[in-house]
Amino acid sequence: MKFKIAILGAGNVAWHLASALEDAGHTITEVYARSLKSAGHITDRVYAGEPKDDLDFSTSEADIFILAVKDSAIPEVADEVILPENSILVHTSGSVPLDILNYSSASYTGIFYPLQSFTKGRKIEFDEVPLLLESDDEETLQTLKKLAKSLSPLTYTVRSKDRKAMHIAAVFASNFSNHMIRIAEEVMRRQGLDFEMLKPLIIETISKSLQLGAKAAQTGPAYREDYETLEDHHRFLSYNESVAEIYRLISQDIIDG
Amino acid sequence: MKFKIAILGAGNVAWHLASALEDAGHTITEVYARSLKSAGHITDRVYAGEPKDDLDFSTSEADIFILAVKDSAIPEVADEVILPENSILVHTSGSVPLDILNYSSASYTGIFYPLQSFTKGRKIEFDEVPLLLESDDEETLQTLKKLAKSLSPLTYTVRSKDRKAMHIAAVFASNFSNHMIRIAEEVMRRQGLDFEMLKPLIIETISKSLQLGAKAAQTGPAYREDYETLEDHHRFLSYNESVAEIYRLISQDIIDG
Repeated sequence: MKFKIAILGAGNVAWHLASALEDAGHTITEVYARSLKSAGHITDRVYAGEPKDDLDFSTSEADIFILAVKDSAIPEVADEVILPENSILVHTSGSVPLDILNYSSASYTGIFYPLQSFTKGRKIEFDEVPLLLESDDEETLQTLKKLAKSLSPLTYTVRSKDRKAMHIAAVFASNFSNHMIRIAEEVMRRQGLDFEMLKPLIIETISKSLQLGAKAAQTGPAYREDYETLEDHHRFLSYNESVAEIYRLISQDIIDG
Repeated sequence: MKFKIAILGAGNVAWHLASALEDAGHTITEVYARSLKSAGHITDRVYAGEPKDDLDFSTSEADIFILAVKDSAIPEVADEVILPENSILVHTSGSVPLDILNYSSASYTGIFYPLQSFTKGRKIEFDEVPLLLESDDEETLQTLKKLAKSLSPLTYTVRSKDRKAMHIAAVFASNFSNHMIRIAEEVMRRQGLDFEMLKPLIIETISKSLQLGAKAAQTGPAYREDYETLEDHHRFLSYNESVAEIYRLISQDIIDG
């Protein structure tokens, strides 16, 4: 089943979704952004699709309107958008509840959350992206499932409360593990050392963690309760109070775990 | 050039090194552990190699003695071991300085630190393991380089101070990123959610981080300075004070970075 879809937003999620949807055979009717120029960056990439900088979609032919703006902008855009009859409005956020769309002009609402980290210009294989769906309306949920399955086999129905837990888990597993790598980069750079040396270790650690589970995969001075090394490392990091405290706190959590 | 090597220790590093060294054509002469049974676990895996539970190596034919015990046991074993003339004693630790071997009976000392996370039973391709070498004696360093190059092309000479920085960086990049995944597992399990859903995100995040650098790869609520979501997540995590504080501290460090 092919849908006509309007995209509201011009960020990373909008950028990736627009072309993935078109690749899957759906039609992008319009792309809204606050400026025509931003909207144009996305419509330039899709076959059809009109760039728009106003929220009057009353004459749009789209069946589904995907709100892919940043979390804080969702209420405002949802309230202001003028949608045609029988339209479905979904947002793509991991942390915003479904009922935020209650005051919109949409007939039906839902959530279409791609659980992946998107970066502009970096191609994502959508068939490996878990899509987390929610709607209070059973028929809408079925429609969203059809849409989701046209992009990825990893399609899940998730309640708002679970979606929040999942988003928090994703922050730890993705953003925070990435930040640990960032701190490692800084420690190496400060000492004039080549970060390349650490890459085999990182690759082995993560693949081991995903294969055996993170608890079984753990090693290192905190895991061994090697307090002398922990104190020595903490002292070494005293040039950056925040990083030293992160070192202390995570080490303690590993010891307690 | 082929060496005769004795291994002191029966942990994960000893276990992996012994078979990698033998695969590279060297001879394992003895393996020492506090019990013959532990030593036997390793000698069972190598062609030659006598298990030992005493530290008298005065009649050993080995050229190089590799001390692969836990950090806190290094001084004691190094002081007690009786080595033959002209022997080289190295330890394999990322955090212990070279001079800890000063009081040993070795003629020459050095460090042979494989920068990798070893888990018993999990095969490591040694040709992807960076080997970090150090010695005060130039001839010993050349010998260690020959030995290292027989295992891996990733061979570096690193001073004790740099090795410590590298070890700290490795703790962040490996142990701590793994712990972030562990916390994510717990958040998911507590909510009855399938951790599998997060795996594509983790794989994409780490591969993006190693490709673009962690700073460019960062996303998420802290990076977007989405304070509402940050507060909401922090509240959600209030059931575990330590994890909530880790959330707060890392988020703040991302914002400040």
